[in-house]
Amino acid sequence: MRRRDRTVLRIGCKGTYSDSGGKGTIVAKPPTVDDVARLAGVSRQTVSNALNTPDIVRPATRERVERAIAELGYRPHAAARQLRTRRSSTIGIRLDPYAGGISGVVLDRFVHALTESAGERRMRVLLYAARSADEEIERMRELVDSGEIDALVITGTYHGDPRTRWLLSREVPFVAFGRPWGLDDIDAPAHLWVDVDGAAGTRAAARHARDVAGEHVAFLGWPSGSGTGDERERGWREETGGAGPRLVSTDDVAGARAIVESALDGSDPIDAIVCASDSLAIGAHLACTSHGRSEVLVIGFDNTPTAEALGLSSIEQLPERVAAGALELLMGETGDVIAPRRAESGVAHVLVEPRLIVR
Amino acid sequence: MRRRDRTVLRIGCKGTYSDSGGKGTIVAKPPTVDDVARLAGVSRQTVSNALNTPDIVRPATRERVERAIAELGYRPHAAARQLRTRRSSTIGIRLDPYAGGISGVVLDRFVHALTESAGERRMRVLLYAARSADEEIERMRELVDSGEIDALVITGTYHGDPRTRWLLSREVPFVAFGRPWGLDDIDAPAHLWVDVDGAAGTRAAARHARDVAGEHVAFLGWPSGSGTGDERERGWREETGGAGPRLVSTDDVAGARAIVESALDGSDPIDAIVCASDSLAIGAHLACTSHGRSEVLVIGFDNTPTAEALGLSSIEQLPERVAAGALELLMGETGDVIAPRRAESGVAHVLVEPRLIVR
Repeated sequence: MRRRDRTVLRIGCKGTYSDSGGKGTIVAKPPTVDDVARLAGVSRQTVSNALNTPDIVRPATRERVERAIAELGYRPHAAARQLRTRRSSTIGIRLDPYAGGISGVVLDRFVHALTESAGERRMRVLLYAARSADEEIERMRELVDSGEIDALVITGTYHGDPRTRWLLSREVPFVAFGRPWGLDDIDAPAHLWVDVDGAAGTRAAARHARDVAGEHVAFLGWPSGSGTGDERERGWREETGGAGPRLVSTDDVAGARAIVESALDGSDPIDAIVCASDSLAIGAHLACTSHGRSEVLVIGFDNTPTAEALGLSSIEQLPERVAAGALELLMGETGDVIAPRRAESGVAHVLVEPRLIVR
Repeated sequence: MRRRDRTVLRIGCKGTYSDSGGKGTIVAKPPTVDDVARLAGVSRQTVSNALNTPDIVRPATRERVERAIAELGYRPHAAARQLRTRRSSTIGIRLDPYAGGISGVVLDRFVHALTESAGERRMRVLLYAARSADEEIERMRELVDSGEIDALVITGTYHGDPRTRWLLSREVPFVAFGRPWGLDDIDAPAHLWVDVDGAAGTRAAARHARDVAGEHVAFLGWPSGSGTGDERERGWREETGGAGPRLVSTDDVAGARAIVESALDGSDPIDAIVCASDSLAIGAHLACTSHGRSEVLVIGFDNTPTAEALGLSSIEQLPERVAAGALELLMGETGDVIAPRRAESGVAHVLVEPRLIVR
């Protein structure tokens, strides 16, 4: 009621106002190229030239147009700019429904950091939902065909990933968070990728465990076959020679706790447990506490807020550095130009060395 | 190298192919309205009419155009559609840099759910970064002026929030996650909002605590003055009459632990502690454990994965329901039309009743 009596004027906008009809409220409309032309005393075409091909406009005229643009607060409509430049200045990334558990926090931190880094380069991040690889490809197809995005970031790559095949066949600029598993990813990478060096992380964790806890360093990981999990196991094995037992659990606290409890009841001595995730580490931590074995050193992976809250050491993936690496690969270090074919020459991947956080 | 020898054809696209020059690779281009017109044997204008004003096109002609569109896999360019409809089908939301701690998970879950719900309505979610309210207003201004978004969702509202003032003055469609603090938000809401009924949550927690633990139910909250925190304290006070002590800590585990440890050393009997957040609850839980007082019932707020991992009861905010409520307010229950002025009539807010998860 109150608001109906009020005339809303936009500060800095001296352009056109139109009666919206109906309720008789007067609403400010953004200034148009016609308003700029009228105020500068030039044609629409001259305004357009001043914006798009300034070199062909006389300096005095160009200044008049620029003054009118500043005075009116005129901004070219993004859709018009997109049609002209065929650029949307937007990067797409899939966001899955929340699945519970603590492991999603790394990807969420990556999305936060990607938004931040993209903003610094005057790019936006567009989210889309998909429940399978096929559905994701359909979403990507829509976004690419409609020109809504310039590039894509895909996450969670796996052996034989159909998304990378599709993106390569369509020549869509993209970077993967996750390496091209099963392919030669360093010397002849099939596409741009960023990843965290999981083996380096568990090597550092195993080394620290031997230094401060003892020789018998166990590894608690997922069933074999996941590229990420196998990498993390490899680091532990390289550092320790597989000195302690290798324990396997799905990625949940209760399952991990049960596995570690029976291992502590067994005959293998255990001084420390290097874990493939913080979920596993929390299960291990609870098992050690309940068995009165709090001297067993437990090291997690992902450095989640939960590990921090419990005072557990963990390997920090540095998602902010991963996001910055993804944008550098897509856009170059300074420019805003996307180089879709860079995988064929020069730097085509960024492998971030994670950091052990000791608590 | 391998890829240079390959001709990339797009399945389902029988449209134009152009030589991209340079390397001699042949690249498929998306079909255009001209391709549709040529295949259907009609003019460009007729194709445009069939898409935008189908009523004025003869049914037989319309069918021919539709067949050609299907055969070519033609999709109108989003930017062209945006210029025509003045709709971008996009909702903007700010995403802050990750700040550590466990409380961010609720907002992250909200963003996940918003993306999912928006996708079901054929809308996208666009993220932008900002480090202050002023910077957020500047980002919103850019997105609104450039036509990149149809509506905004703002989060974390507070007393005297300048963002809502700006959005109202510019008549931008928006909904707030967080009520308009300090204003009459139920009967005469200043704008559309969704929120979680924090007082209902702590009432339920305090009731449960009395039922299963005892009369002396303490509250562990933040310093007064935050709308959200004061609401959560109110629910506890209404249910218990302030039976146990009221403890105050900033939202960190170590601080909360120290406060609760001295309370347990004091003379006030404590049977249970209802907490304003899971961070506080974890501190309280660690304090009780270290003081051999694990019989004290600790209840958190936010139902974070950390509370789940530790087996703590907590109040679940149901961010998925909050996100669905936000979109219903913005778009109506079925339509895709955004109703910016709805705050003046009919349903203008959604208050979600949270759920106590007992563990």
